Amino acid sequence: MPATLIDGKAIAEQINAETIVEIARLKNQCGVTPGLAVVLVGENPASVTYVSMKDKVCARLGMHSERVSLPATTRESELLANINNLNLKQEIHGILVQSPLPPQISEEKVFAAVSPAKDVDGFHPLNVGKLANGDPTGFVPCTPAGVHELLIRSGVRIDGAHVVVLGRSRIVGRPLSLILSQKAAHANATVTVCHSRSRNLAEICRSADVLIAAIGVPGFVKADMVRDGAVVIDVGVNRLEDKTSDKGYRIVGDVDFDAVSQRALLITPVPGGVGPMTIAMLMHNTVRAARMQHGAS
Amino acid sequence: MPATLIDGKAIAEQINAETIVEIARLKNQCGVTPGLAVVLVGENPASVTYVSMKDKVCARLGMHSERVSLPATTRESELLANINNLNLKQEIHGILVQSPLPPQISEEKVFAAVSPAKDVDGFHPLNVGKLANGDPTGFVPCTPAGVHELLIRSGVRIDGAHVVVLGRSRIVGRPLSLILSQKAAHANATVTVCHSRSRNLAEICRSADVLIAAIGVPGFVKADMVRDGAVVIDVGVNRLEDKTSDKGYRIVGDVDFDAVSQRALLITPVPGGVGPMTIAMLMHNTVRAARMQHGAS
Repeated sequence: MPATLIDGKAIAEQINAETIVEIARLKNQCGVTPGLAVVLVGENPASVTYVSMKDKVCARLGMHSERVSLPATTRESELLANINNLNLKQEIHGILVQSPLPPQISEEKVFAAVSPAKDVDGFHPLNVGKLANGDPTGFVPCTPAGVHELLIRSGVRIDGAHVVVLGRSRIVGRPLSLILSQKAAHANATVTVCHSRSRNLAEICRSADVLIAAIGVPGFVKADMVRDGAVVIDVGVNRLEDKTSDKGYRIVGDVDFDAVSQRALLITPVPGGVGPMTIAMLMHNTVRAARMQHGAS
Repeated sequence: MPATLIDGKAIAEQINAETIVEIARLKNQCGVTPGLAVVLVGENPASVTYVSMKDKVCARLGMHSERVSLPATTRESELLANINNLNLKQEIHGILVQSPLPPQISEEKVFAAVSPAKDVDGFHPLNVGKLANGDPTGFVPCTPAGVHELLIRSGVRIDGAHVVVLGRSRIVGRPLSLILSQKAAHANATVTVCHSRSRNLAEICRSADVLIAAIGVPGFVKADMVRDGAVVIDVGVNRLEDKTSDKGYRIVGDVDFDAVSQRALLITPVPGGVGPMTIAMLMHNTVRAARMQHGAS
């Protein structure tokens, strides 16, 4: 029996609806409109698309948004000065610096320059440390937080399950492994982090109750890497050339969807799975940041 | 064939000898003697023993050490004030607050109060975040750093190996999983974090090339949880009542040593395995802190 699809778009809309309620509450309570600033350096086409999508969702939810667009030649010090301005700006509660950054700029320094209180991407080392420590006062990165919500709202039992995370990036794999292995409700998983250097990868993947692919290789997860009845979450967003498409490309995930969906119990499609969740969690984090900055309950 | 013992005492002395060279270099270069402050709240007998051992090793290596002893009834604000004094004190380069703390005091707040530059225990969220991000400018907690050195100096190949860590504490299991799965030399392991809620624990442990027990249960790891030829590291330090001993107790690890050592290739004893490494890494971290605070190379 083919797998049931996890509808990321529908679940993201559910979260957006909750966020709209939160925004209204904050306006009533403190007269505050949550504000998000997105910093874009250069014109990477995928980044431009993401940033526009974020702007649109902000507008739709009734949030304030600003965009700071800088040329690809921007010096690190200029970017840091821009971030510092946003740190000080009262109307801005959340700051996101779109990755990837041009090579003359250190991501490490940029992530550490965003005020931890406005770090709605959760990449500041202080927020990463809080996540690792199980301290809920920090911000959790949006994509892994979105995967977590997808699992919870799809009724997947995480407690005691074996979760295999393919990929150890600071944006997805690493924080996901921290979230899911935490001593907390909707967590308590046994988590294995695999990566390009792992031996016996297929065997380890086959032992997963929940398999999460965030490795950035189109169709990497084949049917023989998935056990019958597993839950498969595909975080991959890969552009493949496609001359039959208007855009000249199509987006595929890290999972060989057609084959794997014959074995899995639940599976996320690409697009329409994890993608919409990332933006929904960004909005959620921004409203939470505004609430915390204004001392609202 | 029974396992070869990993001699933690000998490896710790090797590291101490390297630290002595570093201390001499720092004295010559900057006229600085590295200083460690240990804060002890209450009189937990195990804590008193640890703290005395740390004092002794400091003295033996030619380091400055101070002890701040506070009663078990100390208020959180008093402890924080003491930590702040040490943060400001020039002769002190490293600060360690001995766990466990009495119940009226939040460990979270105490760890976050130690200046990150003097946090030689590596528990400040900023240092935890740096570790998770693979940023080498922070401090790594002493026990997991010691386990890492034990593996490296015993010639264990970590790259690509499957390491199973039993336990997810912020002091041992969690940071170890971060260290060993990093994209770096002597790392790149596939790491599984297990804990009290894990299902199929024995089966997962049997799949380990390297099994690390840090779960705090005497003799928890039985022979049938270890595959032939595995490397077994026992981080457990458990006091068992023993009327035949002068002290009235003896120290045992988390591994059923007699049985498991018949299957393993390499194994650490308790005591004399991981224990001495923790103190050696504390001294190493303190000298590094002094070097960084004085801008020495």
